[in-house]
Amino acid sequence: MSASHTPSDQAMFHPLRSELETIEVLRALADPTRLEIVRILAAERSGELACGAFGLDASKQNLSHHFRVLREAGIIRSRDEGRNRYTSLRRADLEARFPGLLGAVLGKKALTRKP
Amino acid sequence: MSASHTPSDQAMFHPLRSELETIEVLRALADPTRLEIVRILAAERSGELACGAFGLDASKQNLSHHFRVLREAGIIRSRDEGRNRYTSLRRADLEARFPGLLGAVLGKKALTRKP
Repeated sequence: MSASHTPSDQAMFHPLRSELETIEVLRALADPTRLEIVRILAAERSGELACGAFGLDASKQNLSHHFRVLREAGIIRSRDEGRNRYTSLRRADLEARFPGLLGAVLGKKALTRKP
Repeated sequence: MSASHTPSDQAMFHPLRSELETIEVLRALADPTRLEIVRILAAERSGELACGAFGLDASKQNLSHHFRVLREAGIIRSRDEGRNRYTSLRRADLEARFPGLLGAVLGKKALTRKP
């Protein structure tokens, strides 16, 4: 995925692939809700998911916080389209910077499904 | 490494391999000092290191906390011998539960050195 930003997500910070930091990525993943978000995205065949479609038992504000932590760590990418915000896993960036990390954390099965 | 405890480390909690939890392991690794401890242990040819031999710039109390967090997450094993406490990386247990995690977090080079 390219690091360029479309006009619609200019307001949202996304670190470049080269800016991904081990500690920040680990911190972001070290939370049950955030790990579940990553797990859901990893299994999502279409590649991206509207933020309201995760079916997680958490308040909108709480989820908003978790999506931000994941985005700012470089784990997910978000983009706005109309009134929806779509989120995808930065799988290629993570694999390039931390080869094997997603597979190790999610289990191999979670990564066999690709869009 | 076996999960059995010698009399000298009975007072120290070490989770069994099967008890290692993704979130706890990630939380324990998501700290610069603790990641450095793991990095040093991964590069240690002898397999284990006395706690005073890490050469880290942190107070004894602070280091003690970090060693405990790593031990309780199942990342390191500690044993007392005389007045020294020796620490080793639970490499086999981590590799069995989270294949590729150490390599992904430390970088491949850190794992090519084996005792």
